[in-house]
Parts: sequence; C-alpha cells; structure tokens
Amino acid sequence: MGPTSLASAANPAIDDAHALMRGAARLLFDLGVNAIPEFTLPCGRRADLAGLGPKGEILIVEVKSGIADFRADRKWPDYFDWCDRFFFAVSDRFPHEVLPGQTGLIVADAFGAGIVRESPVQPLAPARRKALTLRFGRHAAERLMRSL
Amino acid sequence: MGPTSLASAANPAIDDAHALMRGAARLLFDLGVNAIPEFTLPCGRRADLAGLGPKGEILIVEVKSGIADFRADRKWPDYFDWCDRFFFAVSDRFPHEVLPGQTGLIVADAFGAGIVRESPVQPLAPARRKALTLRFGRHAAERLMRSL
Repeated sequence: MGPTSLASAANPAIDDAHALMRGAARLLFDLGVNAIPEFTLPCGRRADLAGLGPKGEILIVEVKSGIADFRADRKWPDYFDWCDRFFFAVSDRFPHEVLPGQTGLIVADAFGAGIVRESPVQPLAPARRKALTLRFGRHAAERLMRSL
Repeated sequence: MGPTSLASAANPAIDDAHALMRGAARLLFDLGVNAIPEFTLPCGRRADLAGLGPKGEILIVEVKSGIADFRADRKWPDYFDWCDRFFFAVSDRFPHEVLPGQTGLIVADAFGAGIVRESPVQPLAPARRKALTLRFGRHAAERLMRSL
C-alpha cells in the first residue's frame, strides 16, 4: 500500500488519522496489548489509543496525521504522566526526524504497523496504575455495551 | 411487556437468556456499573455478565432461562470466589423461591430490570481484585476492538 492511499479524504496532504489508529491498534493487539481508542485521562486529555498489556502495563499512542497536527500539540508531554510507555504513530511519509527522540515511534498504515523505535519505560506509581486500569476497564465496557 | 414476549424462539417454555442479559446489563449501567457479557474467569468458567463499578467493585450476574437451566448448574457457588456481589437474573415467570437466599436477585425483561434482592457483599482480596480488574479491562478492550 502506498502512502497516498492513507491520505485523508478531506485533505490529501495529511493522513487519515483513523486509519493510522487502526493500524497501530492491530500492531498492539499482535503484541498482546489490548487497546481502545479515545481514552479520556483523569487530566481531561483524550489519548488516541490506550493499551493494556498482559502484566498491566499501560501504553498511550498519539496519532499524528501530519506535521501541522504535531506542531499544534504542545501538550503531548503530559501523556508521560499516564502511561508506562508513550508512542507517536505516523505514516511513512511523515518526516520522522521532527518527532522527539525520547518517545516511541510507530509507523502505521491502515492495515498494520511496526515499531520503529521503542519507547523508554517510565513505570507508573502503583496507585495511579490501579486507578487507570479501573478507568480503562470501565471505559472499554461502556464503549462495548454501546456497540452491542 | 408480558413474560411471553421473552420466550425463547427455540422453546417458548424457557426465556431468551440473551434478552434477560441485555435487560440486566442496562440495569447495571444505570447503577453506574459497566458490564460485559461472557467474561471468562481464571477458573475457566464463563460469567454471563460481569460488571465493574466506580470504586472497582466486581459483580457477576448469572442469567437463568428457566428452572432446568438453574438445576443443571451445580457449580454456581464457584462464582462467589470471583466477585464482591453475585446475582441471578431471571424473568418474572421464573419461580423465584427456588433460587438460594444468599444470592442477589435481578428480575429482568429485554429492556430493563430491577433488583428484587440485594446480594450479600463478600469483598475480594486485593490481589485477586487487581488481577480481575486487569483481566476485565483486557477482555473488554479485545471485545470492543473486534466489534469496531
């Protein structure tokens, strides 16, 4: 699949964020990390993708559809407070060098993705992990119920 | 809605377990408990409905479509090990008096339900609650992902 097939219908210069999100979610799933889209954090920010691993590890993936999308978001470091590992997910036409090095990097298309750079691990404090895991479970169940 | 409209298409003498499950899930949702169907427990048994409350409380609801269904299930006390509160959910044509008194009782139809008898509370040990909450979140996310 060429990068152009990822182009957003509204603006071909940027990528379809939803397609990238799906590709990244499939990657996480293959890695044993079960992810949900649009997870609202206690701080009020919404993570594009939040994943829960088999040992309770929490990942956040922020999808960027283009450089403008990345540059407009000055608050992405806030995510570090709410996960063990943080990744940006972009397409292969995104200039990876503009992304900060202390984050993980996922390159995705609509059908899958690969980890290009692992994220550093900053383990959550136990009380916060507990609260986030509960929030994650309740959020996923609510979303599932609405979809049934 | 009369009880007959709950009758299973395959056998009008018994109730549609899926409809009862949906009614019970809506009740839990209204009570702030987010529930998922068919939650497999670490012991291998599958709970018809498992719910996660705002403070992390875990509920299990076992749906019974008729007396035969209840009598065939000799292992329902096993559920006590995996939740803080346990309920049977039945229709209003189910003879409630055959159900054991030390359990909660939900009377449901396809559109909603009511708690007829509260369940005793037997709090889970912290380590088990933690493991079940993680399992719940991962299970709900997996189910949600498959439904998206």
